[in-house]
Amino acid sequence: MKKLAVIAFGGNALLRGGQKGTYREQMLNVTETCESLLPFLEKDYNLVIGHGNGPQVGNVMLQHEAGSQEFGVPSMPIDFCVAETQGLIGFMIEMGLGKVFAKTGIKRNVVTLVTQVVVDKDDPMFQNPTKPVGPYYTKEEAEKYAAETGSIFKEDPKGRGWRKVVASPKPIAIQNVDIVKRLAEEGNIVVTVGGGGIPVVEKNGSLGGIEAVIDKDLASAMTAINIHADEFYILTDVPNVYINFRKENEQALKTITVAEAKKYLADGQFTEGSMAPKIRAAVLFVEATGHEAIITEATRLSDPACGTRIIA
Amino acid sequence: MKKLAVIAFGGNALLRGGQKGTYREQMLNVTETCESLLPFLEKDYNLVIGHGNGPQVGNVMLQHEAGSQEFGVPSMPIDFCVAETQGLIGFMIEMGLGKVFAKTGIKRNVVTLVTQVVVDKDDPMFQNPTKPVGPYYTKEEAEKYAAETGSIFKEDPKGRGWRKVVASPKPIAIQNVDIVKRLAEEGNIVVTVGGGGIPVVEKNGSLGGIEAVIDKDLASAMTAINIHADEFYILTDVPNVYINFRKENEQALKTITVAEAKKYLADGQFTEGSMAPKIRAAVLFVEATGHEAIITEATRLSDPACGTRIIA
Repeated sequence: MKKLAVIAFGGNALLRGGQKGTYREQMLNVTETCESLLPFLEKDYNLVIGHGNGPQVGNVMLQHEAGSQEFGVPSMPIDFCVAETQGLIGFMIEMGLGKVFAKTGIKRNVVTLVTQVVVDKDDPMFQNPTKPVGPYYTKEEAEKYAAETGSIFKEDPKGRGWRKVVASPKPIAIQNVDIVKRLAEEGNIVVTVGGGGIPVVEKNGSLGGIEAVIDKDLASAMTAINIHADEFYILTDVPNVYINFRKENEQALKTITVAEAKKYLADGQFTEGSMAPKIRAAVLFVEATGHEAIITEATRLSDPACGTRIIA
Repeated sequence: MKKLAVIAFGGNALLRGGQKGTYREQMLNVTETCESLLPFLEKDYNLVIGHGNGPQVGNVMLQHEAGSQEFGVPSMPIDFCVAETQGLIGFMIEMGLGKVFAKTGIKRNVVTLVTQVVVDKDDPMFQNPTKPVGPYYTKEEAEKYAAETGSIFKEDPKGRGWRKVVASPKPIAIQNVDIVKRLAEEGNIVVTVGGGGIPVVEKNGSLGGIEAVIDKDLASAMTAINIHADEFYILTDVPNVYINFRKENEQALKTITVAEAKKYLADGQFTEGSMAPKIRAAVLFVEATGHEAIITEATRLSDPACGTRIIA
């Protein structure tokens, strides 16, 4: 039986700090990230890729805002914007993998699924939306839009203006995850839960979109649990997880237990919106499966001992 | 063995003349179109849905243009824009079908695949791009962009300005069509070849995007042929195909042979960019399979004798 791994691509797999996000930049980045998967391809792993969309969905929201102002094209809610980025990024990953296959002679098929992820409309996070999305506004604009749309706006802590904030509810079900499992077990590389998945809730007996953003590491962890993955990798822009990060006594972690991870989390060792959600996603996977989760940089994947391993 | 039908949704399945394209308008339209599929669901057909994206990809291109001007967000080539609309429209169709299932108690699963469609880089259409896309420009802007990007711009025949034109090459292969077939035969409703598919060509041994637009009826016909569909429907905004359309001697066609269809095409009975490509797609399917193709309005599908049937 071949090993099955779920790999969550971080935002910088596609768009890096200081880049504007031209398609050439994004294609170079994504191809590099796809090349880093070579060790898995050479060992004939079955693979499922989850990915973030932070910079891309931000750009899509800016485009919608500008399109509405300049051409009167109606802006779409954030769930529709996430759906757009799933098409966009899935296409880029398919092309990036294609280049790796052409270079190495490896032959694998790639399938990208548009993926809805169900959240609970009573998730307490909806009472306290904290995830900033889309353009910066002046206070006056923000108050106007808040009155018009019912959206919530908060002032940026760095003083760049006011931004819409949405909830980041917990994923509770991944649509079509059984199909993801089967396609992956057949050797197809499956791209799914892009941007954490399109957030949907049950409304009158069917699923409908809701303005929210689902953490892509949590959605990828849920996918990994549901498809009984043997390994779960979260790619980020540092080689390891650290305690006392960027302090004099900074320490790279090699292997930690779930209990240690939880203690460090409780101690505030990991930044919210950055390493903390990755640790939580890793813990979720390890607790559910007993398998290990690895947090590392894409370029380190050729080293079997890379990164920080979270174990039971 | 259950019957397998491919249904190509026309542009007005999602966005109608005079509408701006708010998500509420689009969701109402798509839900209505999904309701029109009820006769197929009641007869337990296996279904594959292809769909257009004309108004949506037009809006995405306007949003990219405005986002670039107002916020400096880099515009993406049209193949990336098509990929965005596949996510967007696939999500809407999934929600629309979900509403129909909730209303009727029918249970079917829906899967949307991001779909690349291979075209030939030597397709003669690349020598003569004719499909206008994106914003209108002044002559000066068009000349500037043409010089900067190598794109071709043509003056709008109605005098609204200058627009970029891209080629509309023939689809030669549908990516993952074997997976489409299998998922559909298992009872999943599969959404694929959105907007005619993301146009790709072979470059250095792998597939890469190219600025082009593939006719969605042709791509849907190719899909129908490849998956051995029993029936192929092209939905449009008129109940039948007509000869002498909008003239005194206008005549609705009930059943025509491929030979008759070809003769009418040669006689210029069908408008290019409107009915002519639908007839060509229908002829392609009927010639390859011997089965009939039906061109009609979504609302007529409950009548088993609806529309214009093209037969061998």
